[in-house]
Amino acid sequence: MGNRIGNLMDVRTDIKVLDATIRDGGLCNNFEFTDEFVRALYEMNVRAGIDYMEFGYKASKTMFKESDFGKWKFCNEEDIRAIVGDNPTEMKISVMADVGRCDYKTDFLPKKDSVIDMVRVACYIHQIPAAIEMIEWFHELGYETTCNIMAISQANSDQIAQALAMLGTTNVDVIYLVDSYGSLYPENASDYARIYLEAVENTDKKIGFHAHNNQNLAFANTIDTLSRGVSYLDATVQGMGRGAGNCAMELLLGFLKNPKYKLYELLPFIEEYMIPLRESGVVWGYDLQYMFTGLLNRHPREAMDFTAKKRGDYAEFYKTLLENE
Amino acid sequence: MGNRIGNLMDVRTDIKVLDATIRDGGLCNNFEFTDEFVRALYEMNVRAGIDYMEFGYKASKTMFKESDFGKWKFCNEEDIRAIVGDNPTEMKISVMADVGRCDYKTDFLPKKDSVIDMVRVACYIHQIPAAIEMIEWFHELGYETTCNIMAISQANSDQIAQALAMLGTTNVDVIYLVDSYGSLYPENASDYARIYLEAVENTDKKIGFHAHNNQNLAFANTIDTLSRGVSYLDATVQGMGRGAGNCAMELLLGFLKNPKYKLYELLPFIEEYMIPLRESGVVWGYDLQYMFTGLLNRHPREAMDFTAKKRGDYAEFYKTLLENE
Repeated sequence: MGNRIGNLMDVRTDIKVLDATIRDGGLCNNFEFTDEFVRALYEMNVRAGIDYMEFGYKASKTMFKESDFGKWKFCNEEDIRAIVGDNPTEMKISVMADVGRCDYKTDFLPKKDSVIDMVRVACYIHQIPAAIEMIEWFHELGYETTCNIMAISQANSDQIAQALAMLGTTNVDVIYLVDSYGSLYPENASDYARIYLEAVENTDKKIGFHAHNNQNLAFANTIDTLSRGVSYLDATVQGMGRGAGNCAMELLLGFLKNPKYKLYELLPFIEEYMIPLRESGVVWGYDLQYMFTGLLNRHPREAMDFTAKKRGDYAEFYKTLLENE
Repeated sequence: MGNRIGNLMDVRTDIKVLDATIRDGGLCNNFEFTDEFVRALYEMNVRAGIDYMEFGYKASKTMFKESDFGKWKFCNEEDIRAIVGDNPTEMKISVMADVGRCDYKTDFLPKKDSVIDMVRVACYIHQIPAAIEMIEWFHELGYETTCNIMAISQANSDQIAQALAMLGTTNVDVIYLVDSYGSLYPENASDYARIYLEAVENTDKKIGFHAHNNQNLAFANTIDTLSRGVSYLDATVQGMGRGAGNCAMELLLGFLKNPKYKLYELLPFIEEYMIPLRESGVVWGYDLQYMFTGLLNRHPREAMDFTAKKRGDYAEFYKTLLENE
């Protein structure tokens, strides 16, 4: 366990807050946000002092049919520009590119021709070589880059050390610790954070954290890792994201002491857009079924299926999970 | 910040889990639980390995009319016995006695004639002398005792040191850190825990923690303080409790590694009793209005009023809170 940096009164100017509402939240509604919603979120994020807004995925159009999804699974340049114009703001724009599910050599413009600022490469730990190839490609094009190593709770320590060593030799700007299964306790999350931070100690690379709320710890884990020195923090409005969702932006902005972050700005947006979105039937957030998969360090797919079927037989579901351990 | 004791794989045999569902949850439904509900909870708690079950308050019948509340605001001996008989189980029974709202000299039997094992004395920090008088009374009667110092986030360090020194000279068995406003972050909670633990270091007194979930940190704060050495842990089924509620028992039992605790036992009870209770209109749990009062370190009464009125104008509510700072 490392020491904490800063304290509960400080401003940490190294912190960058990334809003992933459209990207991780898009997994709850097939990326079918209206332009009005995305524009209102964009304008709100700018006012709230958010540092990066992620618009969605750059998914392969050869693997996924555009007509099967909302546009934010593909993030066409013109679709982003329809919202942000040339983005004449301080806030940067990011998209996510999944290893193995992105035609990265054809689908990205050089940075000078794009309104996108940062590309986040998401991979599992065995895909690090493929991720590095993509990172260097995006770096050459002129983008900021991150490597988001998912499902870290299922990787072993040697793999993690090796992945971090490999990434240390690349041009990647930020390495993200990603608790895909929401199975980390703050004590684990801060142990991982220490390992990641030590790995980049003598470089100018930064460490980020992306939480899931399966055990209702997304916010707690986020503020614990940030207190250890993690500086890129993902959050979504009302925690909207796959399954149990993510760290709630309103909790995070309430916690951060930098006056550039303005919690109040979120509230009219929540009233006008998020509450109606939930009422329209889009479902996310902490519930028992997600706690079970988090506790058992498993992919939430069975819990998502339980939710989709509106099941309420928690005991039976938990028993089945234990039988398939 | 102290070191952690134990680790995430250990069994901590010093830990005692207290179920406060009827007592803190009773604040959500005027203590109007059916006997069937309370009996099912009691039997489930026994099976789940819970160490203490709190049945409610011993409120003054001269201050409060019995006909205005459910019976668990008063916890008459015969009402508890109607559920537990002579309580032929390993699980102990507690009740809460509020300073200034309890006729303690008339309403308690000697322990040898009562099925109650522990009396928890709740007070604000300026009421410590009154609390001590009650604690010694209950101790003389033969009960285990605790002192639950509420709203600790509004007390100053000198007051806390003095209160702990005073309690150190008494016969109290457990001193509880109580985050009444849900305003502590794990970093605060563990700092307080260290102060409380140091104060009882050379005694056999124990430290407890009672969380509120205003900032969605009740579980995180509970496991953080326990990792520092706190050993009496309050939780309620599905976090049922005033306002944003408490630490959820299912999360806590999922975390604890002692095989005596059985998470599975909670699940049929949740299906059969808790879900219908919520569906009947009893409301508790994390929501934005509670986050605001937690963040501002204030009593949740305004947020409870916002909830009761089914208001959804979060922005307006937050503005009003800020104006009344």
